[in-house]
Amino acid sequence: MDFSSKMLEEAVDQVSQLPGIGKRTALRLVLHLLRQPESQTLQLTQTLSKFRSNIKRCKNCFNISDTEICEICSNTSRNKSLVCVVEDVRDVMAIENTGQYRGIYHVLGGKISPIDGIGPSQLSIQPLIEKAKNGEIEEIIFALSSTMEGDTTNFYIFKQLENLKISIKTSTIARGISVGDELEYADEVTLGRSITNRVPFENSLKN
Amino acid sequence: MDFSSKMLEEAVDQVSQLPGIGKRTALRLVLHLLRQPESQTLQLTQTLSKFRSNIKRCKNCFNISDTEICEICSNTSRNKSLVCVVEDVRDVMAIENTGQYRGIYHVLGGKISPIDGIGPSQLSIQPLIEKAKNGEIEEIIFALSSTMEGDTTNFYIFKQLENLKISIKTSTIARGISVGDELEYADEVTLGRSITNRVPFENSLKN
Repeated sequence: MDFSSKMLEEAVDQVSQLPGIGKRTALRLVLHLLRQPESQTLQLTQTLSKFRSNIKRCKNCFNISDTEICEICSNTSRNKSLVCVVEDVRDVMAIENTGQYRGIYHVLGGKISPIDGIGPSQLSIQPLIEKAKNGEIEEIIFALSSTMEGDTTNFYIFKQLENLKISIKTSTIARGISVGDELEYADEVTLGRSITNRVPFENSLKN
Repeated sequence: MDFSSKMLEEAVDQVSQLPGIGKRTALRLVLHLLRQPESQTLQLTQTLSKFRSNIKRCKNCFNISDTEICEICSNTSRNKSLVCVVEDVRDVMAIENTGQYRGIYHVLGGKISPIDGIGPSQLSIQPLIEKAKNGEIEEIIFALSSTMEGDTTNFYIFKQLENLKISIKTSTIARGISVGDELEYADEVTLGRSITNRVPFENSLKN
């Protein structure tokens, strides 16, 4: 693209570095800023730099947080011995939105993925093992996505916990047909698992 | 969405004010910033605020520019008496990319659109008329999109020029079938116009 303005070109370059935003979209967004009052752009940029500079990781669960210990971990009505292992903050938000979970979380910050050069040491796995060793945890729920990387990560943590030789209950979230989905459109693996892991009919009446 | 962090919520709110970006995309973009070095976010925000605060409108053609007079208007090899009327900077860029145009531009900043509350006074139409009155212009090419708003704007400017009672050539860019398009998929209006405004075959051999 031939920009007649150097500043416009720089702005478009910067915005198009964001994931899923190409040069054309970036140009559209940047020109939109010109149609808004200057104060709005300054608010946007100040909010973003403040966010990036001041956001913390919760010392307990590694979720992003405004404070040293996040709201969930500092909530006294939460069951601290029930820990749900998730990949990132979006998964925390998704589970929180169900309103069904009263334990706390442990955010790994990713999944073990040798292809992307992510090994166990880059994730917050060790702090989880420490917590388990200190007897703070009764049950761990694995809630990673069921991809190869997710399964590998689950298994790695499971093995580490086994080495501790203390009894901790581990579970994974149920895989099965989505509520409201038609059986004929479900994939075989999911349908197969949903039959293997069938639940007593009375249980399904509870929710 | 239930954000456990106030700063995250504010950042997502700000980003989701941009056109075409919803809450989910905004969250994805904001979390992306956390995976990048802090310096990159600061560079993004500094570039954007610098752009918004320092960008100018060219005093001659109203295109956005780093300087008082834009690169195109200050280029001495350009024909200053040939003026192409466009809606915004994206149209300038599109025409510049063809490499076929050696005149200058006049950027209106929009189209007359009573539904959106945009009247002639909000656009830079008056400066164009002034330039015409001063005899600076020999030909005006209307290159607005051929929507109702575009046609209205063209016609308004045309009438204003007529009132001046000085002879200025006016033209509009040719409407017709896109190069490489199949006739059977063209809409009737475009196909109809392309027949009405047919050009001598020899002309089509030139490009």
